[in-house]
Amino acid sequence: MHGEIIAIGDEIISGKVLNTNSNFSARSLFHAGYEIKRITSIGDDLEDIKEVLTASIKRSKFVIVTGGLGPTPDDITNEAVARAFGLKLIENKLIRDMLESSCTSTYPLTEYQKRKLTHLPEGAEILNPNSRASGYMLRFNDTLLFFLPGMPNELEEHLRDQVLPRLRALIPSSFVFLQKTFKVFGLKEPEVNARLDRLKLDKKRVLVGYYPNFPEVFVTITLKGSHDQEAKECFENVIFTVREILKDYVIAEDEETLEQRIGTLLLKRGKVLALAESCTGGLIASRITTVPGSSNWFDRGVVTYSNQAKMELLGVKNETLSRFGAVSPETCREMVEGLKQKTNAHYFISVTGIAGPSGGSPQKPVGTVYIGLGSRKNVNIRRFQFKGTRTVIQELTAETALDLLRRELEKSVEF
Amino acid sequence: MHGEIIAIGDEIISGKVLNTNSNFSARSLFHAGYEIKRITSIGDDLEDIKEVLTASIKRSKFVIVTGGLGPTPDDITNEAVARAFGLKLIENKLIRDMLESSCTSTYPLTEYQKRKLTHLPEGAEILNPNSRASGYMLRFNDTLLFFLPGMPNELEEHLRDQVLPRLRALIPSSFVFLQKTFKVFGLKEPEVNARLDRLKLDKKRVLVGYYPNFPEVFVTITLKGSHDQEAKECFENVIFTVREILKDYVIAEDEETLEQRIGTLLLKRGKVLALAESCTGGLIASRITTVPGSSNWFDRGVVTYSNQAKMELLGVKNETLSRFGAVSPETCREMVEGLKQKTNAHYFISVTGIAGPSGGSPQKPVGTVYIGLGSRKNVNIRRFQFKGTRTVIQELTAETALDLLRRELEKSVEF
Repeated sequence: MHGEIIAIGDEIISGKVLNTNSNFSARSLFHAGYEIKRITSIGDDLEDIKEVLTASIKRSKFVIVTGGLGPTPDDITNEAVARAFGLKLIENKLIRDMLESSCTSTYPLTEYQKRKLTHLPEGAEILNPNSRASGYMLRFNDTLLFFLPGMPNELEEHLRDQVLPRLRALIPSSFVFLQKTFKVFGLKEPEVNARLDRLKLDKKRVLVGYYPNFPEVFVTITLKGSHDQEAKECFENVIFTVREILKDYVIAEDEETLEQRIGTLLLKRGKVLALAESCTGGLIASRITTVPGSSNWFDRGVVTYSNQAKMELLGVKNETLSRFGAVSPETCREMVEGLKQKTNAHYFISVTGIAGPSGGSPQKPVGTVYIGLGSRKNVNIRRFQFKGTRTVIQELTAETALDLLRRELEKSVEF
Repeated sequence: MHGEIIAIGDEIISGKVLNTNSNFSARSLFHAGYEIKRITSIGDDLEDIKEVLTASIKRSKFVIVTGGLGPTPDDITNEAVARAFGLKLIENKLIRDMLESSCTSTYPLTEYQKRKLTHLPEGAEILNPNSRASGYMLRFNDTLLFFLPGMPNELEEHLRDQVLPRLRALIPSSFVFLQKTFKVFGLKEPEVNARLDRLKLDKKRVLVGYYPNFPEVFVTITLKGSHDQEAKECFENVIFTVREILKDYVIAEDEETLEQRIGTLLLKRGKVLALAESCTGGLIASRITTVPGSSNWFDRGVVTYSNQAKMELLGVKNETLSRFGAVSPETCREMVEGLKQKTNAHYFISVTGIAGPSGGSPQKPVGTVYIGLGSRKNVNIRRFQFKGTRTVIQELTAETALDLLRRELEKSVEF
């Protein structure tokens, strides 16, 4: 009773575009209890599309196909479907009417573009007659095929509002499961594995998965099968033990992110954060402000990239900069002290480092980073030596800084 | 003479992790002149891996396989390879020696974990004996198979330093081509298509591809075939005409990004930028500081999330905030003026808006954004109405703000 996903487009197999559509589809279907066994990407090639479509209906109960439905000449999904299943392409009235009525407002389509959009394989059931880029469903033998637009926002809307309701009505979900994700930072995959191995879990029943998701490692505990009381209790016990073992390396659970966790902890204390970033260049502030409502616990950030900015916005002393350099514990400390003095926030993070690729020296090689963490009472400065490209160093710095704050906030005492 | 890519891991087909490995591999191979016809993702399932491996060697000259080589129990690639091709798993001396010598420094591996890492299918040629997570190459019939680690940084290193040199030595690249990518912002895919359609290009020779890469659309012009003088001239002519047609909607070309383009333009003028961000929360600064050397043309950013921060860091008047609100042209203007007064930079961007999901009103719905762009002489405030989720609104705002600056910098006159 499993399904599969097919993504069509030269842009995917040439690596020009990251295939986020298949990822979104797989995740949504998995969480709705449907098993996906395979994801295939192929180019805008009639023969390849035909071959993959024909093979898919032999092994899968449902198939999600994305891309190649647009009005441009490289969009050939409809033609490939018609040929693979021996169907005619016929004009769809619903789409034609919708196009005629909406075309005045935006830009005009040529006759060729209209023809491409309106001619669908016979038997196609339009998923959303109000959408200008509607996908369609096709039943062939015992398989349901969903053909969906390749634009990510349209794909997501279609999958959530059109595909999942129809799947639920037509195919019962193939498994029930209990699942918990632990997001771990500071332990590598084999280290997590070694810790959990000591648990001696029932491996037939409890599945443990390890998914590096830089800079975090996701650990999932899955219990497949029935949802009875006994299963729930067994699951809860395992979760409890795993949580005990991984302890403060767990930065968040399930859908929560590290920055959301920090927001929750700050809100609970009624405290507010301020940031001073140099080598991360706003990455920490940017992560924080992806969280809705972060204005309740985030006051401000300064991206003090130049020495001038460090002096003017944070009161870092010229002498400190010239004597110890911008990347030094002394500067890092004065950055925190500056935030303390110039804001009404309660907690403070400052970072200064060398993200590279140039700017390193034998004493301070690329990847040298100082992170300052402060409250109204205390200030701590730590030195780190990260490895990797500029982006990797920036991401490790941001994650480490946020994690240092989280660890303090998880404690019951004020720091 | 084409190849294919196989990605192994439950984390991929359940949508837990985005398959960036296949994307990186496909892009690198494409640029080295190798054609990839298919990318398949399957789970940690012995039968599925066997089936896909067996099918791959019938149609492909080379196969890149990523994932499932680690020391944890869900890593079963080696076993699947052995079964698919009828090979024994035997201990590899090189790997065993390397593990023995390196194990003292970091964390210890269990005997089981060591066994998993050292036992490879017979005939496996180690790619990098110095790497703790080395992949290997296997020749089977006429196909080269490369088995590579699933950690993105290790995969990338292997592909660049080990796979490509071996491929070049063993298989001539299957096509030569000339390619140009135009990155377009502000025109939708069908609009770009309609403009280029008027060109009447020789469609057998010149391929035009459209790849939405939110919030940009990538347009590629590809000329496959020989590299002779005539082909080069034909290609140059097409590029010239396309550039003329798309004009200032092209924000960058080929590997360049919008923020790199801005850096190049600012450096050329010897000018420096300062930012004041509210609803984008540091995203613009973060994009700018991903560019190596941005310290030469970026002075500072302030993320003035609270009203207090807007007043203290930018001198926005309390009266302005209470009379017009934080999201208003008046506040946006005072944010730019504040940067002008408080920094020595030459150009200034300010943004203030409602990213949502809450905080909207009938007069200022979610997605209302003001962007201010200033030089020492001029200040312009523009209102935008964006649609989408919080992240989409933040990304559109950042892209629009950067693009407004780029358009000014592309002009020959000072603004």
